[in-house]
Amino acid sequence: MATERARRPDSFTQAAKENVAARDVCPFCPGHESMTPPEVLAYRAPGTAPNSEGWWIRVVPNLYAAFRLEPDGQEHREDRFWQRDALGACEVLISSPDHRAPTPLLPRLQVEEIVQSYVDRYRHHNENPALEHVLILYNHGRPAGASLEHPHSQLYAIGLEPPSVLEELEGARRFGQSNHECVFCRTLEDERRAGARVVYENEAFVVFAPYAARTPFETWIMPRRHTASFGDLDLKREKPAFAEAIQLTLKAVYDGLNDPPFNYFIHSAPLRTSAAQPYHWHLELIPKLSTAAGFELGTGMWINVVKPEDSAAFLRERINQAVAQPVQSEASG
Amino acid sequence: MATERARRPDSFTQAAKENVAARDVCPFCPGHESMTPPEVLAYRAPGTAPNSEGWWIRVVPNLYAAFRLEPDGQEHREDRFWQRDALGACEVLISSPDHRAPTPLLPRLQVEEIVQSYVDRYRHHNENPALEHVLILYNHGRPAGASLEHPHSQLYAIGLEPPSVLEELEGARRFGQSNHECVFCRTLEDERRAGARVVYENEAFVVFAPYAARTPFETWIMPRRHTASFGDLDLKREKPAFAEAIQLTLKAVYDGLNDPPFNYFIHSAPLRTSAAQPYHWHLELIPKLSTAAGFELGTGMWINVVKPEDSAAFLRERINQAVAQPVQSEASG
Repeated sequence: MATERARRPDSFTQAAKENVAARDVCPFCPGHESMTPPEVLAYRAPGTAPNSEGWWIRVVPNLYAAFRLEPDGQEHREDRFWQRDALGACEVLISSPDHRAPTPLLPRLQVEEIVQSYVDRYRHHNENPALEHVLILYNHGRPAGASLEHPHSQLYAIGLEPPSVLEELEGARRFGQSNHECVFCRTLEDERRAGARVVYENEAFVVFAPYAARTPFETWIMPRRHTASFGDLDLKREKPAFAEAIQLTLKAVYDGLNDPPFNYFIHSAPLRTSAAQPYHWHLELIPKLSTAAGFELGTGMWINVVKPEDSAAFLRERINQAVAQPVQSEASG
Repeated sequence: MATERARRPDSFTQAAKENVAARDVCPFCPGHESMTPPEVLAYRAPGTAPNSEGWWIRVVPNLYAAFRLEPDGQEHREDRFWQRDALGACEVLISSPDHRAPTPLLPRLQVEEIVQSYVDRYRHHNENPALEHVLILYNHGRPAGASLEHPHSQLYAIGLEPPSVLEELEGARRFGQSNHECVFCRTLEDERRAGARVVYENEAFVVFAPYAARTPFETWIMPRRHTASFGDLDLKREKPAFAEAIQLTLKAVYDGLNDPPFNYFIHSAPLRTSAAQPYHWHLELIPKLSTAAGFELGTGMWINVVKPEDSAAFLRERINQAVAQPVQSEASG
């Protein structure tokens, strides 16, 4: 329950939708730095003051934080009803000063800076022993939950392990015990051998549609090197390759599917896990092309109407064209 | 993967949305019976022929079935990639002949007939030893996944136990072992004692907001009698009470929140479970007032911005008014 974000129950009536903040009142635009809490990180031109113009990446605490680092500290129990404060930090990572520049169309170097800001904030929270997990995510488009138009990622550093990561950790642990190898490393091998679901690969990352993709065009980006934690990203060798993989994939989705809404998030091991643990961090991209309805809510299963092999072939072709003819592709995109 | 429903990957481009079928070509309207597969159940006026006009409830196989009762029967394995055919039946339960009558505004007796059709089809599939589970659900409004405007429920009779039901079964089993009682019966007792989350109750059902509601206005309808399987609904005593609870709740949501999209589904024990099993069937109603975005997808957790106590109070007040002044309420709705 996040009463920090609370609205009155009757504000949910369907007529009372909020509007997306227009550009002139956007709290994430340069010149409006005072509309956000003070920045916790910024990459900015030499000589410019904190919380003023001159930045190209800016990270601020989320004004509508669902988790707080200084909770009231009270647990409450009554019968079987038990509650505690949600411990954590919520941050907004503003992708660029340009309100109208969607992340899929940003220059490669700017995407590298975004990745750098992810790593910097991940490593920062990794030092806090009260925290268990860091989730970094990006919502693109209002149907995918982006409430402000200005492109931005979000970070949740929280005091518990999320259920969907726990499930992956547990599966990886079981597979490791029986097979003495990392299930994600093995998946990369199997996928590269099969080929049909591979979208792209460079020297450090493989982009592929997972075998049992939940939705049309679900796509994962996974490092080839076994690494449990995103915090261990190799800034020299892996950072540029990760940025390239993100940029090419998002651009293929943007161009090929006419700018659909999407979500991506990075799944990483619990904080302070050793690199050798049987987990393997990765990015999961889920375009929002269908609606999770009663079947998905009621079963926890997904019905996918497009084979992952077809999704992968569609994106692979787009990326091959972009890589072969980068200038034409930019111009026609 | 449901290739029966497949569209070409490029049909997902954002411009290429299908339109909701208009009334004159609606396959669920009277006079259009030949547009659907032949009916498997209908409540119809004496003397009218199957698959002709004269029905008030009509159940047909889903033309876009994601499961089939006669699968190819082949399993396929390659490396760790394993697949099998999705065994099951998908049906559409048309709520009324009236294209424009949303279920929340149907007369009480028609809702009883809907419940009767749920029970009839549940019991039918319960006889098929190849099937493990029956899920009955209703999607209201396009944002909640209703692809056709004419109100209808859906039934999935499938050859496996859905993960989200398994999770409830396992929790109920564990609680039963430690506490020698049904966790759902205990929840009803605790909720009725606490009172703050109870929306409504009649002689056989309790309507309440669950303690850790996932979304604003999530509401459960649960029988007071311990019954594992929906198929064991007592048609004389429980059917009218269930229909009343559904109708009052849906109408309060419809009026109070200005016809929001919503999903509901019935969670029931595995087929052919004895009534005494430590499970307790119930209906879960989830209005779609917020968007599941990167946080929910990445963690499997939900952030709810409205306390369930506030949701419950809002709906409780609506229902109390409706029950006290039924005629005025109908007129002003």
